[in-house]
Amino acid sequence: MTADASPAAELIEELVIANKILFRENVVDAFGHISVRHDKDRNKYLMARHLPPGMVTADDIVTFDLDSNALTHQGMAYYSERYIHGEVYKARQDVVSVVHCHARPLIPFGTAKGAKLRPMYHMSGFLAEGVPVFEIREAGGMTDMLIRTPELGKALAACLCDKAVVLMRGHGATMVGNSIRQAVFRAVYSTENASLQMSAHSLAENGEVEFLTAEEGRKADQWGRSTDRAWSLWRHQVTNL
Amino acid sequence: MTADASPAAELIEELVIANKILFRENVVDAFGHISVRHDKDRNKYLMARHLPPGMVTADDIVTFDLDSNALTHQGMAYYSERYIHGEVYKARQDVVSVVHCHARPLIPFGTAKGAKLRPMYHMSGFLAEGVPVFEIREAGGMTDMLIRTPELGKALAACLCDKAVVLMRGHGATMVGNSIRQAVFRAVYSTENASLQMSAHSLAENGEVEFLTAEEGRKADQWGRSTDRAWSLWRHQVTNL
Amino acid sequence: MTADASPAAELIEELVIANKILFRENVVDAFGHISVRHDKDRNKYLMARHLPPGMVTADDIVTFDLDSNALTHQGMAYYSERYIHGEVYKARQDVVSVVHCHARPLIPFGTAKGAKLRPMYHMSGFLAEGVPVFEIREAGGMTDMLIRTPELGKALAACLCDKAVVLMRGHGATMVGNSIRQAVFRAVYSTENASLQMSAHSLAENGEVEFLTAEEGRKADQWGRSTDRAWSLWRHQVTNL
Amino acid sequence: MTADASPAAELIEELVIANKILFRENVVDAFGHISVRHDKDRNKYLMARHLPPGMVTADDIVTFDLDSNALTHQGMAYYSERYIHGEVYKARQDVVSVVHCHARPLIPFGTAKGAKLRPMYHMSGFLAEGVPVFEIREAGGMTDMLIRTPELGKALAACLCDKAVVLMRGHGATMVGNSIRQAVFRAVYSTENASLQMSAHSLAENGEVEFLTAEEGRKADQWGRSTDRAWSLWRHQVTNL
Repeated sequence: MTADASPAAELIEELVIANKILFRENVVDAFGHISVRHDKDRNKYLMARHLPPGMVTADDIVTFDLDSNALTHQGMAYYSERYIHGEVYKARQDVVSVVHCHARPLIPFGTAKGAKLRPMYHMSGFLAEGVPVFEIREAGGMTDMLIRTPELGKALAACLCDKAVVLMRGHGATMVGNSIRQAVFRAVYSTENASLQMSAHSLAENGEVEFLTAEEGRKADQWGRSTDRAWSLWRHQVTNL
Repeated sequence: MTADASPAAELIEELVIANKILFRENVVDAFGHISVRHDKDRNKYLMARHLPPGMVTADDIVTFDLDSNALTHQGMAYYSERYIHGEVYKARQDVVSVVHCHARPLIPFGTAKGAKLRPMYHMSGFLAEGVPVFEIREAGGMTDMLIRTPELGKALAACLCDKAVVLMRGHGATMVGNSIRQAVFRAVYSTENASLQMSAHSLAENGEVEFLTAEEGRKADQWGRSTDRAWSLWRHQVTNL
Repeated sequence: MTADASPAAELIEELVIANKILFRENVVDAFGHISVRHDKDRNKYLMARHLPPGMVTADDIVTFDLDSNALTHQGMAYYSERYIHGEVYKARQDVVSVVHCHARPLIPFGTAKGAKLRPMYHMSGFLAEGVPVFEIREAGGMTDMLIRTPELGKALAACLCDKAVVLMRGHGATMVGNSIRQAVFRAVYSTENASLQMSAHSLAENGEVEFLTAEEGRKADQWGRSTDRAWSLWRHQVTNL
Repeated sequence: MTADASPAAELIEELVIANKILFRENVVDAFGHISVRHDKDRNKYLMARHLPPGMVTADDIVTFDLDSNALTHQGMAYYSERYIHGEVYKARQDVVSVVHCHARPLIPFGTAKGAKLRPMYHMSGFLAEGVPVFEIREAGGMTDMLIRTPELGKALAACLCDKAVVLMRGHGATMVGNSIRQAVFRAVYSTENASLQMSAHSLAENGEVEFLTAEEGRKADQWGRSTDRAWSLWRHQVTNL
């Protein structure tokens, strides 16, 4: 890789901070990961080597091609599910960042029969376009649930389709965004929405809840300023520990 | 603005502390805001510029007129929902402080059909007078859910009427008080009440709960000493970090 | 008060630590209080002046007679509900310490119709003897819910009877013990039990739960060593902040 | 005990760290314990003396024989339930480490009638083999619920059988592993699974949830790398306080 092709130091720093934020906000624990598309080459992406997100530093950021082969940090361990990232970048030219997590409030929405994650409020308007649930049995039969191959990654990306979030039955969720900040924002607020929605169903007569309509959701998803406002707080929290 | 018209430094400091308390008590996250009526001019109010409440300092406090035009800090970004504050101050001469938030336990009460926030105990007696739910569709049709205009602010203030708290469907809640301390107290304990009430409904046979009566609520809302006791603790916590 | 009659410094220190523990364990917030019977005079008790428990120091510990008149710290503000303590000490010669709190998990058990706090496990065997619910309307009609008078205190003590815990509808709970440590232990684990029980009811088919029997509860309540083990941890946590 | 027979310092350190991790992850509070089989003698095991896990240091690690007699630290207090450990080591040659706890989310699964802990996701595939519930009444009649004798320990070990986890009605749970790390991992993720499962049941239509199949669970339980990844984070957190 030539010097020109190296990712900007600012992008790597943003990715490191994103790792710490996702950990602090309980979106990830020792598991889960976030990647960003390479700023100099759309056919590469950046992601930490096999480490808990809360322990990632700039030195741990590996460059991968879209087949999820490591181009740096040779011989080190990588996340076995890196195919989630590579295959989503192939399928979605609009996507710049991908989060994969096992956030506690989201798991039940991928596992409880008949449950459907829907937008409770303006912070999660991006859910209004629909949240598909990926059933790995359809793509891989009886597995260990992990996206360990390019084929499973492709199947997940196909299920995600043009949406912001895909739930994975018996496993977790994957979110995408047009920037690290948007992907993190969506990860945090789809998790928050899941908490809110569980309470709402248990509170409502007959479980009926008034969600945002498609139009309300679409409009509420258009204010970019809020992503930066949240980021400024989260960044402050993880860099001032 | 002449020197005479400047707000007291103590008031600004109290407002800054209130921002930090609301953040620490999980009433607000990166979003939400608190304002106070100007102590020298009833037709103005004070509120932070566009910042997460947890990051607000005295230098960030803007003076607004009741049409929510900024009179200081020109050219900076302001909360897009400042009309909540200005229009409530116009409509409610008794109100000295306004909180707007998306506190997690409150959202379901504005969104679940048939749910009704009611006083579980003496700490939230102020709920006994009733808690209206604002449906923005009635005032604005299909929106991004935010109170972005004076008209929507007026409609919200009309829905709040003479009450202490108004829930906002698919969005959050707004609380008012005759001081910063009372508004913060009501924000914290309406949130706490929502948590308690959710548990009570799920525990009760047929969901039936014995709430405070109107008279119990009214009486329980009259001991001002408790507001100062809570404030002394909360102030200590955010100023001794 | 003569020097002889002064409480032991160790007792005051234990009471201060108990205040901090109850705060740290989320049994109390800015409200709630703990008292201990005077070690030199059974007709007096010790309790903080009107302060949030988390802020109490040795200098704040007031001596009261059993009518809840302050014998020290004259002219200062005291908890308006101190009659809970005085009247329980009069009625219960076995009681050495009293906790009053509004712990979040306990409130619904005093408020939801048909709910009954019962021992989920060996840590809360003391609940097996039964947990009465105090309805202040029977003793005082429509009030502000507080135990503001000796009469209300007497009525509460009568409802507590010979039990370890009494729930107070629309208000909170009161626990007693034969030492500060036992009262704190019971406060923490009746709160924990309430959390466990709510989950168990929602999980069980038809809400049926297998509680400890009276005999299991009685036996489980007899191991005093556990109180000291918990205290050693809690003390460590609040004195090593 | 000769010098040869002393456990490796690394094993003791790992056990101390495990104590701190279990405390920090809310698997244990002041109560609960973890042991490891002696690395030089399969007929002995190591466990702290009678202390809250969060306060254990290397000096507190006692060597026990499999009848749970202390071979070191004579005359000190030991956990009264140490028979859980000794009898499991006798019955299960494959087991190297045992955790006993009262983790909040697990208790209801041992107590609510008809409830059954089952694997929600790949992190807890080890639950797919089934989770027995130990009813102490069958082995000991009306007790204080504790495993105070070798006989009760044997009965518990028989109930655990060849599984990874056994729930104890009205008491807690016991997990086993082929290393300290695996036992801790199973303790943390069976607790997490319990939280997830409670939400899933309340969310699902008719309470129906799609759990991992036996095959999915078995496969998901085979990736040892994840245990080390979680350990690296948890170790970091408790050694960098």
